[in-house]
Amino acid sequence: MEVLARIDGEAGSRVVSALADVSPELAHQIAAWGFGEIYSRPALPPRDRQLVTLGMLTALGGCEPQLEVHVNAALNVGLTPEEIVEALLHSAAYCGFPKAINATFAAKKVFAERGLLPVHGG
Amino acid sequence: MEVLARIDGEAGSRVVSALADVSPELAHQIAAWGFGEIYSRPALPPRDRQLVTLGMLTALGGCEPQLEVHVNAALNVGLTPEEIVEALLHSAAYCGFPKAINATFAAKKVFAERGLLPVHGG
Amino acid sequence: MEVLARIDGEAGSRVVSALADVSPELAHQIAAWGFGEIYSRPALPPRDRQLVTLGMLTALGGCEPQLEVHVNAALNVGLTPEEIVEALLHSAAYCGFPKAINATFAAKKVFAERGLLPVHGG
Amino acid sequence: MEVLARIDGEAGSRVVSALADVSPELAHQIAAWGFGEIYSRPALPPRDRQLVTLGMLTALGGCEPQLEVHVNAALNVGLTPEEIVEALLHSAAYCGFPKAINATFAAKKVFAERGLLPVHGG
Amino acid sequence: MEVLARIDGEAGSRVVSALADVSPELAHQIAAWGFGEIYSRPALPPRDRQLVTLGMLTALGGCEPQLEVHVNAALNVGLTPEEIVEALLHSAAYCGFPKAINATFAAKKVFAERGLLPVHGG
Amino acid sequence: MEVLARIDGEAGSRVVSALADVSPELAHQIAAWGFGEIYSRPALPPRDRQLVTLGMLTALGGCEPQLEVHVNAALNVGLTPEEIVEALLHSAAYCGFPKAINATFAAKKVFAERGLLPVHGG
Repeated sequence: MEVLARIDGEAGSRVVSALADVSPELAHQIAAWGFGEIYSRPALPPRDRQLVTLGMLTALGGCEPQLEVHVNAALNVGLTPEEIVEALLHSAAYCGFPKAINATFAAKKVFAERGLLPVHGG
Repeated sequence: MEVLARIDGEAGSRVVSALADVSPELAHQIAAWGFGEIYSRPALPPRDRQLVTLGMLTALGGCEPQLEVHVNAALNVGLTPEEIVEALLHSAAYCGFPKAINATFAAKKVFAERGLLPVHGG
Repeated sequence: MEVLARIDGEAGSRVVSALADVSPELAHQIAAWGFGEIYSRPALPPRDRQLVTLGMLTALGGCEPQLEVHVNAALNVGLTPEEIVEALLHSAAYCGFPKAINATFAAKKVFAERGLLPVHGG
Repeated sequence: MEVLARIDGEAGSRVVSALADVSPELAHQIAAWGFGEIYSRPALPPRDRQLVTLGMLTALGGCEPQLEVHVNAALNVGLTPEEIVEALLHSAAYCGFPKAINATFAAKKVFAERGLLPVHGG
Repeated sequence: MEVLARIDGEAGSRVVSALADVSPELAHQIAAWGFGEIYSRPALPPRDRQLVTLGMLTALGGCEPQLEVHVNAALNVGLTPEEIVEALLHSAAYCGFPKAINATFAAKKVFAERGLLPVHGG
Repeated sequence: MEVLARIDGEAGSRVVSALADVSPELAHQIAAWGFGEIYSRPALPPRDRQLVTLGMLTALGGCEPQLEVHVNAALNVGLTPEEIVEALLHSAAYCGFPKAINATFAAKKVFAERGLLPVHGG
């Protein structure tokens, strides 16, 4: 939970809270396994993990709520808005424009909430 | 239509109605083929079919409206909220957390509408 | 941009505008590469391209905003509502009912905005 | 079965035969519903259906065997190798390069079998 | 590992062995978390879990090796070939024919290895 | 082409060559747009792009040939086998075990070709 809170911040905590009355075990496994067992392994630093995660969530499609959580997380671990936008531009070549656009709008929503618009040189 | 109404209930009927002015043939094929030809075959009982269907809709992604219909259907054919929540927890190992979370929130919406929250031991 | 405006119309322009403060480069690449380099090649006429595109967006899932843009585009290049609805019925056999339903509701939204409901013989 | 044989040719018949000892009902439904009920509807001609289908199979991913059947079918209903290759180039903008490459190699295999390589102006 | 061996049998053990020199941690997590933490929970019996899993793997696409493991697992926990084939026929309505065909051929391969062909009434 | 050759190496060149007689334009666009326009932008270094790409290709599914190209590319731009294996372990939490396993076996094939097995601490 501590790793989750530090990286995903308020957005991640909201997901965990919203699961409490329907699937506390899923919330527990996200925190205990996803973050406790996997995310906190030192073999790959958080910034690198977020780059992989942004790629996965863009490619999966239909995961805009998780993209918002992880764009927040990406900012929290040191990726700049410019780098996030560039990663999503890069995704257009591998996932096509529709998924790249969906992901970029999810990022835009997070940037707007955090006062990071406009993105320069994006 | 009779099988569809019994299993999918009001949620399924709403979909069929909403298709009436744009694609009555799609509505017809869902009822005549999907339910009349396939769903009603005795080789697999409705409860088993709903387990397969919950797995498919979670994995496909972007099918939250259909998940709501089929969580309702799952309850109608005898799956408990605890079993549905467990099936979706199980899906995390095969589809990853983002799709499992999306599906669990779709289930939560249906459980809330039917007064089935909180799910105990979920 | 000229090809994009002619084919995608107002819906496409709105996407490009909405990208301006977050990823102007993505907007540029959609127009310059997607439309300038690829779409405008004479080897396949716009009507054929829209049929392929409707199939892809239906199959990808989670691309309802892009489906709305491209149902508009399909109408702009000469596909009739009846043909669009039939293409989406056809998609049920290859992508399953859930994605066919999602795509048909995206088409319905566009048809409603353009006063094209009900679709006859759909 | 007659529509299936005329459009999909030998490749489609091989799939139906291979299903005979494991799921004759699936083979029956592909022929009776997929082709008898859906494909043979006059609202969209076979050439248009194949364009939609090529788009769907490219976008779905992992459907290279079906792409081979449907590239054959596309040729059988009048699409040229140049048009097929162009449709798959077009798909790169919507599905990304990896799926476009996979689909193009499936098409190449069919073209090679039918003596249609090289594709000119592809 | 004991749950994994009992349910997935030799096919599952082969996957774990093949991971040993490239990602022993992934092999460990499949066994420790996938099976130890999730699969062995009593809230859903193994037969029900396999129905969900067959649905997910069919829908994901490109997971034929895992389908083979899990068709074996499905047989090991009490599903009959007829029920498995019916579940995959059912999947055609939700995932489309191409993925249903791919999954059925994966099942056929397992049935052939175990001397279970032809499937009667499939 | 120069960026493509430097990053993707022999594996990438083989793809481009194999496209020459079926879709030289697709080969050209991969090189000219994918690499010339997008990949070579300085806003994200190659190592970061490969992390995003490994995530996308794992999530898309059915892209094992492209994963092999990009695991090679990842090694060429400075990612270690340990980091690649860790990124794919990480992917299990977001894409599920089946896709993580498929991607890890694609990586294993490349590591074996380059004499990099066993991966220590993987």
